[in-house]
Amino acid sequence: MSERTLCVIGLGLIGGSLLRAADGAGWKVRGMARSDAVVTAARQAGFDVTSSIEDVLTDAADDALVVLAVPLPAVVDMLPVVARHAPRCRLTDVVSVKQPVAAAVARHTPRARYVGGHPMAGTSASGWAAGSATLFVGAPWVVGSDDGADPEVWAQVARLALDCGAQVVPAGAADHDAAVARVSHLPHILAAVLASVGADGGALAMALAAGSFTDGTRVAASSPELVRAMCEGNRDALLTAVDDALGRLGAARGSLASTGGLAATIQAGHVARRTFDAARVSDRTDTVHVDVAASGGLGRLRELGQQGGRLVALQGTRCQVQL
Amino acid sequence: MSERTLCVIGLGLIGGSLLRAADGAGWKVRGMARSDAVVTAARQAGFDVTSSIEDVLTDAADDALVVLAVPLPAVVDMLPVVARHAPRCRLTDVVSVKQPVAAAVARHTPRARYVGGHPMAGTSASGWAAGSATLFVGAPWVVGSDDGADPEVWAQVARLALDCGAQVVPAGAADHDAAVARVSHLPHILAAVLASVGADGGALAMALAAGSFTDGTRVAASSPELVRAMCEGNRDALLTAVDDALGRLGAARGSLASTGGLAATIQAGHVARRTFDAARVSDRTDTVHVDVAASGGLGRLRELGQQGGRLVALQGTRCQVQL
Repeated sequence: MSERTLCVIGLGLIGGSLLRAADGAGWKVRGMARSDAVVTAARQAGFDVTSSIEDVLTDAADDALVVLAVPLPAVVDMLPVVARHAPRCRLTDVVSVKQPVAAAVARHTPRARYVGGHPMAGTSASGWAAGSATLFVGAPWVVGSDDGADPEVWAQVARLALDCGAQVVPAGAADHDAAVARVSHLPHILAAVLASVGADGGALAMALAAGSFTDGTRVAASSPELVRAMCEGNRDALLTAVDDALGRLGAARGSLASTGGLAATIQAGHVARRTFDAARVSDRTDTVHVDVAASGGLGRLRELGQQGGRLVALQGTRCQVQL
Repeated sequence: MSERTLCVIGLGLIGGSLLRAADGAGWKVRGMARSDAVVTAARQAGFDVTSSIEDVLTDAADDALVVLAVPLPAVVDMLPVVARHAPRCRLTDVVSVKQPVAAAVARHTPRARYVGGHPMAGTSASGWAAGSATLFVGAPWVVGSDDGADPEVWAQVARLALDCGAQVVPAGAADHDAAVARVSHLPHILAAVLASVGADGGALAMALAAGSFTDGTRVAASSPELVRAMCEGNRDALLTAVDDALGRLGAARGSLASTGGLAATIQAGHVARRTFDAARVSDRTDTVHVDVAASGGLGRLRELGQQGGRLVALQGTRCQVQL
């Protein structure tokens, strides 16, 4: 088997970009899309694409890394098909929650060599035509690092992400879901709430809205269906994040009502935002080497991910992580 | 007296920009700043500027529109000085809340011909050096339109705003404060809450934060002192807005916990944001003429402001409002 053979199932924005990026990085790529229009467009762009999931899975069974590049409900529908045609395949996905996918894989495709993935790139557009070989450049790409992950498949998924220009972040499924609830799903809820409270102020409030409202409500313009699917799919972790927000907003309310002051709320938010800005500055100097195939390797990678570490290079199963 | 004589007290970002913009529009301008460095810099730029508030007020008493271009606490400190040296002057301000200023004026300077103002422009920088003659171009500038406002002074403040390139929004003080609580002050509270909840997720969450978190927390980077002063100064109206947000966030929490669904929250936010986007598109065709000096003129202007109307031209006290 080749270490760089890829089978992408679903050729929307993410899958279509992945097909292009991996091809550009020298991988042997094959794709599958249900839509005839997408198959035709991808073939015209020179790609080996079919509309038969059975064919593409049978071909990929022993040989390729299979990427399920479809939303969570479609992943769950496809897993029994994977179990039938490629039961022991190397398998990853691109879904924005990881515990539900892992649970579905365990139920439907227990023999697959599954390592979850979440490339955190996107645009407001969607579909094959919106895809780009450079979509993942500089973006975080979480690679599922729970105990039991197959080190060889783990390294292959990480290789794919690095070859696409992404920054590989190792994380367990539960840690991933908790983190994205806070920084990706809660922002959508708060944007929706702010937009509604603003609109309740009527035309005068809309006329007076400036940068803070525009910024704070920007993601409320996203497709409600996609936002719902993303947030509702991460229910448990999102409840924790919403409760944290409710507690902090309630504390601000109480302080404003009782003392008239907002110092604690505003100061904590300011310090937090500065921490975030500092974390984005690329002044990493520490480099750690971890062999994902070694005993305790996955646990060490999870620890480094929790500390903000990112995989920057890979030789076989040996990872170079920057902190 | 000249209709275009201006006395700007305080030459920070807003006051300094106002001095430059009004000068550029042909007003006779004079300024006052406490700081010797600012006085020197403004004089070097060719402006007639003094550090004596007594001198500048005495000169302005019968002749000029006096603008208190300082924050709320400084306005309150200055009003007794205004009452002493220019008790019946034409007076406006630039503070981001209007009811507290109106109350302070009624207490300390009851004979002044006061019409409140709030130019909604700003940058992340501050001070004289950051000012610009074009700061107000296209920005909303609220002109206080409660019953009892002097029509001649009202028209002069509106003239100043139009000459600076702003869009004049007529509003009563209470309506103004309620609107900005929703679209300007609440966004700062929610940004602070989101930044804190995100940072609680640790380095992993910070590494996975993308556009939704960056946008939603942007204003948390602002000076905590300025944000506190702005929000705490609008306490009552802000409590109402925070309660609205708490109610909506609590409803989202309840729905997610009980049914797993977020349809109502996400859909309402999406519709609200689209309403906001539509309101920003310049497709206004209705024009209404109102004489601010006529009986009921101020009430009619307040109504039009509530409907999103903006003053686009002015002849004497006759206003042309676009809807």
